[in-house]
Amino acid sequence: MRILRVNMTSSKASWEELPDEWLLLGGRGLGDKILMGEVPPSCEPLSRKNKLVFCCGPLASEVVSSLGRLSVVGKSPLTGGIKEANSGGNAGVLLARQGLRAVIVEGQAPNAKPCLIFIGANGAELRSADHLKGLGTCATASRLQEEYGPNTAIITIGKAGEMLMAAAGVFVTDKDGIPGRAAARGGLGAVMGSKGLKAIVVSGDGKYRIPLADPIAFKEARAELHKMILSSPLTGKQQPTYGTSSLIPTVSEMGAMPTHNFRRGSFDAAAKISGETIHQLITNRGGVGKTTHNCMPGCLVRCSNVFPDEKGNAIVSPLEYETLAMVGSNLDIDDLDTIAEINRRCNDYGIDTIEIGVAIGIAMEQGILPFGDKKSTLRLLDEVSEGTILGRVLGQGAVITGKVLGTNRIPAVKGQGIPAHDPRTIKGMAITYALSPMGADHTAGVMTRFNIDHSKPEGQMEVSRDLQVRMAAVDSVGLCTIALGAGPNTLDAVKRLLEAAYGLSLADDFFTNLGKNIVKTERYFNLKAGLTAAHEQLPEFLLEEPLLPTGGISDIPERDYERFWEESFWGPLTNVL
Amino acid sequence: MRILRVNMTSSKASWEELPDEWLLLGGRGLGDKILMGEVPPSCEPLSRKNKLVFCCGPLASEVVSSLGRLSVVGKSPLTGGIKEANSGGNAGVLLARQGLRAVIVEGQAPNAKPCLIFIGANGAELRSADHLKGLGTCATASRLQEEYGPNTAIITIGKAGEMLMAAAGVFVTDKDGIPGRAAARGGLGAVMGSKGLKAIVVSGDGKYRIPLADPIAFKEARAELHKMILSSPLTGKQQPTYGTSSLIPTVSEMGAMPTHNFRRGSFDAAAKISGETIHQLITNRGGVGKTTHNCMPGCLVRCSNVFPDEKGNAIVSPLEYETLAMVGSNLDIDDLDTIAEINRRCNDYGIDTIEIGVAIGIAMEQGILPFGDKKSTLRLLDEVSEGTILGRVLGQGAVITGKVLGTNRIPAVKGQGIPAHDPRTIKGMAITYALSPMGADHTAGVMTRFNIDHSKPEGQMEVSRDLQVRMAAVDSVGLCTIALGAGPNTLDAVKRLLEAAYGLSLADDFFTNLGKNIVKTERYFNLKAGLTAAHEQLPEFLLEEPLLPTGGISDIPERDYERFWEESFWGPLTNVL
Repeated sequence: MRILRVNMTSSKASWEELPDEWLLLGGRGLGDKILMGEVPPSCEPLSRKNKLVFCCGPLASEVVSSLGRLSVVGKSPLTGGIKEANSGGNAGVLLARQGLRAVIVEGQAPNAKPCLIFIGANGAELRSADHLKGLGTCATASRLQEEYGPNTAIITIGKAGEMLMAAAGVFVTDKDGIPGRAAARGGLGAVMGSKGLKAIVVSGDGKYRIPLADPIAFKEARAELHKMILSSPLTGKQQPTYGTSSLIPTVSEMGAMPTHNFRRGSFDAAAKISGETIHQLITNRGGVGKTTHNCMPGCLVRCSNVFPDEKGNAIVSPLEYETLAMVGSNLDIDDLDTIAEINRRCNDYGIDTIEIGVAIGIAMEQGILPFGDKKSTLRLLDEVSEGTILGRVLGQGAVITGKVLGTNRIPAVKGQGIPAHDPRTIKGMAITYALSPMGADHTAGVMTRFNIDHSKPEGQMEVSRDLQVRMAAVDSVGLCTIALGAGPNTLDAVKRLLEAAYGLSLADDFFTNLGKNIVKTERYFNLKAGLTAAHEQLPEFLLEEPLLPTGGISDIPERDYERFWEESFWGPLTNVL
Repeated sequence: MRILRVNMTSSKASWEELPDEWLLLGGRGLGDKILMGEVPPSCEPLSRKNKLVFCCGPLASEVVSSLGRLSVVGKSPLTGGIKEANSGGNAGVLLARQGLRAVIVEGQAPNAKPCLIFIGANGAELRSADHLKGLGTCATASRLQEEYGPNTAIITIGKAGEMLMAAAGVFVTDKDGIPGRAAARGGLGAVMGSKGLKAIVVSGDGKYRIPLADPIAFKEARAELHKMILSSPLTGKQQPTYGTSSLIPTVSEMGAMPTHNFRRGSFDAAAKISGETIHQLITNRGGVGKTTHNCMPGCLVRCSNVFPDEKGNAIVSPLEYETLAMVGSNLDIDDLDTIAEINRRCNDYGIDTIEIGVAIGIAMEQGILPFGDKKSTLRLLDEVSEGTILGRVLGQGAVITGKVLGTNRIPAVKGQGIPAHDPRTIKGMAITYALSPMGADHTAGVMTRFNIDHSKPEGQMEVSRDLQVRMAAVDSVGLCTIALGAGPNTLDAVKRLLEAAYGLSLADDFFTNLGKNIVKTERYFNLKAGLTAAHEQLPEFLLEEPLLPTGGISDIPERDYERFWEESFWGPLTNVL
């Protein structure tokens, strides 16, 4: 198992053996480890000193459900701290099949000439991507799959990344070749753009498989995991039927779904964009529409979908909860075709739908366009891709949009827009958003589905903290968070898979320790990068402005913020990865 | 001696006695003290939690040259840290004559309705400023002087401050009623705007004078200071003749004057905008033009000027070095009339010429307008005032302009644009810009006129550090930095004035201790606000890109950055004011 290092300045690719002590490290943990060792935390995120690391998990090469996520890690131009974002699609698996656990991209292409990295069984190479300059992610992926064949994974940025927009994500093809899977958050697409890297092509000709230490035990553990997934009501039924949009209208009824620029938590038209409505519409429209769909090879959850237009042609795949809320209810847009089209353009332009949803919400409130105006919203998105001044402002995300448009009411933490779980209702999200080294990122620990009393400010800190630790481990092993819905023993099954694959015996607290070490490392990096307790707080309006209609405010006790980093929980707070 | 506190939320004005232990504290020191005690360092700069403090020095009520500066202090929306900016004009003296050492503005006017504070001998009051909404600083000042009489000081913001632009300054009338004196830096105009405060009117009817403890000693010390000022070649001759623009072409010849967006340090057309040329032109044009002019009552240096157009009508007063460089050479503009007109509009719109000069330089390099294009530059400035999207971007300063326009090459430290002393030539400026709690601010310690070897990276840290301490004391006593040119004993004379006025005997190291305590307090505030060592560095391009034509880079040894805060110099690094 190796690491590929590509220096964009010198156009050189080189290989390193994965150190033994990193054997079980993948995804977020491995990316963190590499970044911590090689990138000065206080460097400028878009300078040659930053690096961008692509990592898969330690089990990605095997045909196991939900274990093929691709993590992208770098210093974020949005938060100013370390950032991991991960995506589904086929890249994680194909990278692993090439015998690679990580690709480190460093330096900057001379004169910012667009390049691509080709990775195949015969090696890796930096090639010109002049012909892809300015192309959307869809055209980039289809051009590259024409050139390199359909059995490839394409990791690419759109125009937003090329224009160094802090809302730019990194996009990855699914098994159908559609680059709709996104390591969306934190502006890592701009980091990729700053390196002059337009795309990575990973050929499907890789043959690597883990020399399983105990094939029988591995098979058993895999069967067990798959059985859990298929028999759980969540991952076996709800997710394959409705996907993540099953959260609508539940979250709207709770009063936690951002609506009208975070003025409300309930959306009157929630039923019009709910999972059931989507399911019905896809079924009725037929064509290429799919109510269930797997984005990663071998995934049994299949929470993805393909959303077709009236004629049955695909608009976008997938249509998911965060997008439905952030560019739907948050903008008072209740029309699925419009939301799907916004989503399609965001994917094609290479923009995070959450960040741009928060930014457009601000723009609507500041009078740039009316709430609910579908046409103006689509036009505004086009401006992002065209690089007009207004488009570039929005492309820099919520904070810069708010500042430029003259408002102090900006739903963001550490520079990053708040996603679709309002912390005034799901109170524990305040801790996740404020304390996670990832900034306002629900994937760092979202407890919206948890069967706890979300209205109580006390005790939420502990729930969020445990969850943040757990999610760090999940992101490190390449596991899709949706698969956690298979039940409380999901990670145990993954542990058994690791043990059988690598012939090890792992302690009961393996994942807990791993997760703690990851979060501690990230916090250490962030402190060195200048992100301190002063940045670990919510915007003031969330503490003061009651959310309609529940009237909730974020009132987590201040001492819980202070207690979050207590050494009695974490152990010594140093870089420990 | 009292402090006036105005709560914008409740419209209440109240008075507090100046505590005895603050007797000698004024300006920056007093503002810091109040901010440290009353404002949570991690608050949002434009929220009701921030406060804006206006302070004069402890000798401002007496007719002594150069001691009437007005300090404005608040948490900066530009740097995210504590910020003091001070200005000349008549406000410092008139405030002191009202028996006030400070005005604390807190809260926020309901619905952001524009208000003004009137301060007169019979009290103070919050009044409506509806009729001033959207007016430039010039119209605001003249309207208010019509209403309140010419013997008033007007402290005001322009449209930039009303629009919460981070490049907005606070503007103060001079003795002629022209609001061309600016506490320009750090976006304190936006803080004023966020409070709904359009202007402060200070009536000239104040009768307060210090009950001098030793009138004879005071008179002697004053005579001594005045003699120093008048007999020094700098303050007695060069400054009254050429003003601060006497630095041109010297600094250009040194290769330290920002030219063509910090690509060069020498400006081919320096002679066209030099102090001598200005002097000649003002003399030739006649009319209301003045080659020398005092902005503060009683000032004997008179480094200010009134720059007239061809017909002898005033364009702007004064035309100064920083402006000549930042909106002149930095933009390849070599025409004095254009620079004066840019300056006039900046003053009227309420914008810092340094911040906007850096921002426009970036915009020129990014192709928004051609270098040297006078008409486009004026048009762009108008866009700031009109609040177009591009105007609002520029109005947010250099960093946001750079990000939005997609460049990583941004001449700024702690979010604040770098002024007209390139640290690749005047190497010590790297320490001032990077380490001063004020961010990239030459007034925190500029050694351009020092007779030292600026090309040597070693030893500069100590020079800058001593100077930063000295300047903090100077800003605290209300002294104009230009007056320091009177000679090495200037501050001794000020010390004797304090002693005679207040009947005290001050230690030899009084100002050194005061300065250290001020800087330490500011650093303490900044640390709590989340500004750490990670923010105490120059932008990377200044360390890598040789400045033409000298080829210099900023190469201060890293250990000097680390040693800056050593306790052997500062003593314990706590909040000590």
